[in-house]
This record gives sequence, C-alpha cells and structure tokens, in this order.
Amino acid sequence: MAAVPITIDSADDPRIAEFRDIRERDLTGRENRFIAEGTVVLRMLAEAHAEGRGFSAEKILLLRNRVEGVRPILERFPADVPVYVADADVLDGVVGFHLHRGVLAVGRREDRGEAALLDALPERALVLVGCGISNHDNAGSMFRNAAAFRADAVLLDETSCDPLYRKALRVSVGSVLSVAHRRGGKALDVLLALAERGFAIWTLSPNGKTDIRAIPPSARMALVVGTEGEGLPEALLARFQSARIPQSEELDSLNAATATGIALFSMASAMGRI
Amino acid sequence: MAAVPITIDSADDPRIAEFRDIRERDLTGRENRFIAEGTVVLRMLAEAHAEGRGFSAEKILLLRNRVEGVRPILERFPADVPVYVADADVLDGVVGFHLHRGVLAVGRREDRGEAALLDALPERALVLVGCGISNHDNAGSMFRNAAAFRADAVLLDETSCDPLYRKALRVSVGSVLSVAHRRGGKALDVLLALAERGFAIWTLSPNGKTDIRAIPPSARMALVVGTEGEGLPEALLARFQSARIPQSEELDSLNAATATGIALFSMASAMGRI
Repeated sequence: MAAVPITIDSADDPRIAEFRDIRERDLTGRENRFIAEGTVVLRMLAEAHAEGRGFSAEKILLLRNRVEGVRPILERFPADVPVYVADADVLDGVVGFHLHRGVLAVGRREDRGEAALLDALPERALVLVGCGISNHDNAGSMFRNAAAFRADAVLLDETSCDPLYRKALRVSVGSVLSVAHRRGGKALDVLLALAERGFAIWTLSPNGKTDIRAIPPSARMALVVGTEGEGLPEALLARFQSARIPQSEELDSLNAATATGIALFSMASAMGRI
Repeated sequence: MAAVPITIDSADDPRIAEFRDIRERDLTGRENRFIAEGTVVLRMLAEAHAEGRGFSAEKILLLRNRVEGVRPILERFPADVPVYVADADVLDGVVGFHLHRGVLAVGRREDRGEAALLDALPERALVLVGCGISNHDNAGSMFRNAAAFRADAVLLDETSCDPLYRKALRVSVGSVLSVAHRRGGKALDVLLALAERGFAIWTLSPNGKTDIRAIPPSARMALVVGTEGEGLPEALLARFQSARIPQSEELDSLNAATATGIALFSMASAMGRI
C-alpha cells in the first residue's frame, strides 16, 4: 500500500532537499544514502526494500506525468515512504537540469559488515572482487555482469568507487540493489578472508598464468579484477593464482567491464552454474 | 619524416577550421572525414595511413606542450601532412572546451565499397555485423572487442551510427582504424552477401536457439548483434541461425558491448583463433 502522493510546489521545499543539485553532490559518502534514478532502479529498490536485502527507501520524488506509469511499483513500498510529486519546472529547479526520466528516490543502505556478508554465502559460491575500480561506468557494468552470471556477491576494496553512486547504480540497471555487496577494507585482507572460507582466488590479468578457459572448477571461486590501465597490484598477482583471457597481442586489451563479463562467464560455465 | 610544426595564434585561423566546436559537430556524415583525438588514436591513424588501410591524415593540431611527447608518432606521417601547434588558450578557443589531451587530427576515409571489402576477406574469417547500433559507446566497444578477438571485419548496417564519430573512435581505443570495416546497406542484404560467400551466420539474441558455447565451428563465421533493448528484428532472427549467451533469467540482460565480447570470445575459441 503506497503513500498518497504529496504535491511539491517549490524547488526550495525542505522535504525534498536531498534531491537538490544531484549531479554535483553525492549522498553515498557520509550518510550511506543514495539516489535511485529511473523506473527500473526504482523497481529494484522496491524489491530490495520488501525482501530486507539491506536497503530501504526513504522518499520518492516523481514528475507528475510519471505517477500513473509507476503506480504498480509504488504499491510495493510501505505507506510510510512518502511520495512527492512535482511539475517539470519545479523538478528541474530542484535537480538542477532537465530530468526527462522523472523518477527519483532516496535510498538508505544498512552495512552489516564484511564478516556477516561472507558468512552468509552459500556452500557453492561465485564472488567478484574489485580492486581500485574508480570508474562509475565500470563499477556499474561489473554489477550487471555479476547479476547476469548469478554471482553471489561483489566485494569492492576501499579504493574503489561507491557503486551506489547515482551513475554507477544506473549503469548497473539497478543490480547493485540485487547482488549482495560490500565496499571497504584493503584488497589483500578481503582476499585472505575469502581464502580462509575456502574460496579459490583467481586474479585476472593480461599476463595471467592460466587460460581462463582452463581454470579448474571448485565449489567456491572468487574472481579478482583491477582497474583498467594499471591492472592489479603486483603483490596481489604474485600471491594468488592468475588467469588471462586469450586475445590479440596488440597493445590495447579488452575494457574492464567486458573482461570481467568474459571471465565470469567462463567461471560460471566451469562451475556448471549456467 | 614529419612536417615542421606551424604555430597557430588565433582561434579563427582558417587552416584549423575543421577543429572548431568539435563537440557539437560531426564531420563524418557529409565528407567521410573524422576527428581523431588523443595519443593512442593518433598512433593508430599513423599506422593506418602508412599501411594504406583506407585512411589518411589531413592535418594534425597539437597543444604546444604535447609536441615532444608525440614526436615519434609524428615521424610516421608523411611531410605533406601539416602539423599545427597552439597554446592552451588558443586551442580551447578553437574546440570550444578545455581539451586536456591536446592531441587532435583530421582523418579521411576512403570507402572502397562492400564487395571489395568482402572479397578481400581471408579463407578463414570471423566477421562482426552490427544492426541498429545507435550508441557511440557500444559501437566503439564492439570494435575494441573485434580487435581483441582478431575479427577480420566489422560491418554496420545503414541504421547504425558512424564508428568514426569522435566518441566512438575514442572508446574503440582507435581500433576503428585497425579493423577493416564498412557502414551502409540494409542488414539483410549484408547478411545475404556474407552467406553467398560461405559465411555461417549466427544472430545473437537472449532467446537464441543454440547455446553460444555449443555452436559448431566453420571456416567463415559471422556474428550478428542488434541494439540494446530492442535487439535484432524478428525477420532476421527467423531467417538465420540464432545463438544465446546462457545467463540469469532476471529481467535485465548483459549490455550490448559485453554480450558482443562474450560471443566473439566463444566463436574465436570454437574456431581455434585464440
């Protein structure tokens, strides 16, 4: 049962202050809150909220002519999540640019800690670990790939960007809200915690030792990817097993998102998950 | 032997008129000319020019402090390709924004026609065909994937965007200049021309009949991909063999670039090319 929509007449209304100038600001850092944008992401937020996946919606802001179209999604939120409605001129005044999608929400993340996430992983598990993923497009695409190949979790080290940042969330088509994830800690510590729990750790690198098509399946596998350009730090590559995607030896390799997709596809195939 | 650099003192200098407001304009349409941006793309243009791959450089424009860094690349261009040099304020005034890369060129494409391109393909060949690829990021990524998995050519139908458009060329990391390609014609006609030349045609679709990992190798293979969202037209899917990438049945599939990368990886594997 959704809340009754409340009309907002002024861009300065304090009830929608979180949406002000969203292009320039980022809620994720200090408050564990984030902006969800677009119908698909709103639907994912509704599901995550309803299923208690560690995300909740705080408020929703809609362009008036979008209300009817998203009503089935609004019905999935509890009635204590306020729904605000504004005309285009007011909405554009709030967000600071022309927002043609007209569907926004503020969400909140509950961080349950790394150990809780790792301990909840199933017996047979595929995990994606990102190290230094600073590009929001790449971060979003990695979540999309993780969802497509049914990874059980995505772990990002503390030097990676926040995948709940508006653009990353949008590029992920909302899958940051459907795939269990956590960001924080040093990559080495995250990998050691996984190894302790029986994960076979596979770093991905153009110079990896094992052809990605030949890595042996195990019940629990972790794929570790680094940033485009620099790749993973030598210390990590030297400490764990490494895999490569066979490709042309020309200078420029696959982009980070595509490489991650191919490696996850190969590992999910090896594990018999797809 | 490169040309001696000529200093440009005014943003209005007619010798560099092609670079004016490059964000807003697109040379590709009417003149078969294009803007190459950045060191990597300039290097690819030098190679394509030197090797007679159907591309030539018309002029080069550099930020003064970039000249030394790119000198080895400049040496590869013939002396009749003028090299213009400007300070940052002049250059920014020309292009209309702050161009921190500071490396630009105008290139020209020579269209040799579809038949000439197809007739020049080797006995064993892998070709990527794009239908309705309207997004420049996706077009650029597809070329990058094609280069990584050694595709012999990329063919785009007339409803696809021009991959020489500045952004697509940059996203491709210059591989639009290294992989033989052509844009034009209706997708069905392109596919029939390939079938006539012995290509096994495989359309890619979430509902494709054959698992991409199970498609039988043949000497000549063509992978056909459509636009994200709508996918390939039913008429094409019904007429040719179809393949799918196994993945989660959740609503949102892989993005177009990643799906193309995975399919090319699988086909190149089947053909024993990687």
